[in-house]
Amino acid sequence: MSRSEPVLGDIGEFELIDLLSEHVGHDPRVIVGIGDDAAAFEVPAGHVAVTTCDSQIEDVHFKKIGVEPQDVGWRAVAVNLSDLAAMGAEPSYILVSLALPVDLEASWIRCVYAGIAQINHEFAVSTIGGNISRTAGPIVIDITAIGNCKQSDLLLRSGARAGDRVVVTGRPGWSALGLSLSGTHVAEQDFQSDRFLRAHRRPTPRCKEGQIAARTSLAHAMIDVSDGLLADLGHICERSLLGAEIDVNALPLSGEFVDAATKLELDPVDLVLDGGEDYELLMAVPPSQVQPLASRFAESNLAPIHNIGVFTQEPGIRVPDRPDLSARPGGFTHF
Amino acid sequence: MSRSEPVLGDIGEFELIDLLSEHVGHDPRVIVGIGDDAAAFEVPAGHVAVTTCDSQIEDVHFKKIGVEPQDVGWRAVAVNLSDLAAMGAEPSYILVSLALPVDLEASWIRCVYAGIAQINHEFAVSTIGGNISRTAGPIVIDITAIGNCKQSDLLLRSGARAGDRVVVTGRPGWSALGLSLSGTHVAEQDFQSDRFLRAHRRPTPRCKEGQIAARTSLAHAMIDVSDGLLADLGHICERSLLGAEIDVNALPLSGEFVDAATKLELDPVDLVLDGGEDYELLMAVPPSQVQPLASRFAESNLAPIHNIGVFTQEPGIRVPDRPDLSARPGGFTHF
Repeated sequence: MSRSEPVLGDIGEFELIDLLSEHVGHDPRVIVGIGDDAAAFEVPAGHVAVTTCDSQIEDVHFKKIGVEPQDVGWRAVAVNLSDLAAMGAEPSYILVSLALPVDLEASWIRCVYAGIAQINHEFAVSTIGGNISRTAGPIVIDITAIGNCKQSDLLLRSGARAGDRVVVTGRPGWSALGLSLSGTHVAEQDFQSDRFLRAHRRPTPRCKEGQIAARTSLAHAMIDVSDGLLADLGHICERSLLGAEIDVNALPLSGEFVDAATKLELDPVDLVLDGGEDYELLMAVPPSQVQPLASRFAESNLAPIHNIGVFTQEPGIRVPDRPDLSARPGGFTHF
Repeated sequence: MSRSEPVLGDIGEFELIDLLSEHVGHDPRVIVGIGDDAAAFEVPAGHVAVTTCDSQIEDVHFKKIGVEPQDVGWRAVAVNLSDLAAMGAEPSYILVSLALPVDLEASWIRCVYAGIAQINHEFAVSTIGGNISRTAGPIVIDITAIGNCKQSDLLLRSGARAGDRVVVTGRPGWSALGLSLSGTHVAEQDFQSDRFLRAHRRPTPRCKEGQIAARTSLAHAMIDVSDGLLADLGHICERSLLGAEIDVNALPLSGEFVDAATKLELDPVDLVLDGGEDYELLMAVPPSQVQPLASRFAESNLAPIHNIGVFTQEPGIRVPDRPDLSARPGGFTHF
């Protein structure tokens, strides 16, 4: 990158806000968008607003070197849409709050905006507000997402019942494998690795899956897998006053997944149960409803689901075939 | 502070979230609060949701040394409630997103939470969500505020008309004076300084004033003064396709204010027009409505208002008695 590459200090705050606005299309649902003191929007009649916030911080959640800024933008939004999905809510709007160094290349943040615009487009979400401050420290991208849901459809962590099956969507473990693959020789030599790298860089929030699970009342409780499958299962158990047992043989472990993990000397089961950042949905589903739920997802070309265990009256999380994993609290914590 | 003072690394992420939750009282309006994947709330029938976000960053917006953490928490919320006020919205909820260093004293963030709880209590606002990440850089406190308003009451920047009076609430310039006074001998010797220091450290968002201006339709346009009075007046002018003329003799300049500014060798007019961070409301009010608006505020023991100029067809902002100020673009920008 040449030294003449414009940095934020060259282009000014208001131009930076204009840059963000360029990526914001017209959305007839928005009453007041970017450009006033605050944004205004209507919540559909009979629905409640659902909201969450989560941030991506340089050198904690992403490295500026070796990662595409579009992916950073995509991911910052995805982790928030995933939280809305886990309530059964339909996403509608985001606010984007940025803390940026004065010497950051303008092209970098342009690409972050492009990544945000891509995921917004994919999920029919509009950016309605934001804020840009300078910082002497790492880049901080803080997103607030807002959606809506019928109150009676909201799926909480607390609704699981003993006997419900532990069901997870999609591809748990792929993100952790992708992260481990990044920059390794294995990734360069094996084009299968692309799917794992992509699962980490561009996680797909399970928005439609979450809404169907909520609207059809086929699930009793739901959470998204961000800390790690066992850790997030622990959150449901804690709120539902239950325990759970996981069947290692029921975990989705494809040949390619196991091969790539083995090449990296990683334990595939460990990746699935403790990898984190999957942004899959973990649900409590009555045994009789697992097949109907799978069919509903399949009809709409959505993620497959995996029936990997059972909620129990007995507290604690057990993995009978892997007592080492049962004993560990697991999951990523910041402090 | 002793070396045994617990830091965030000692107490852990989940305890830190519990600490925040301790300050959150029961709010019957909240359907789902802290503790699930996202929060849920109802928007009153006939109202639209109004939302904004703004952050406070260590060494940009506040210094950790010499400032009370309670004040940092108060201020982080106040600047957001001020943006809602400037739309005419009633504030209801906040989300608190924090980026914190591992070696931060736990007592410091406890006090920030206490400051947030104080302003929440004062304005009947509840914390319904948040997020805590570690950072290797400065502390970032990012708040999203959510309120509501009847759609027909929303007061935008774009509604000013030529001939409307330029009206500002309360005490513009006090915050900038307070900032300049901080830590000086003048502040130590003069107990009158307290009010100016407080205007900076604990700004009062003009929530009730904004709601009355909006509900009574006595104002045509509104903005809060954060960048500086002239700069924010410029934002209304830009959106309303107008100019404005300010009458220096109509500015609120009390004896104590002028005295303290003079002791610091600061120009009092400059402080009022270009100081920034006032969190007062700046409005476009038809001449015949200025007195009725002042009366409505007085009846409710709210802030006084000052009739300081006029919106004009002629573009640009003029301060006839101070051509030096007219020429300057003014206002704080981050880049």
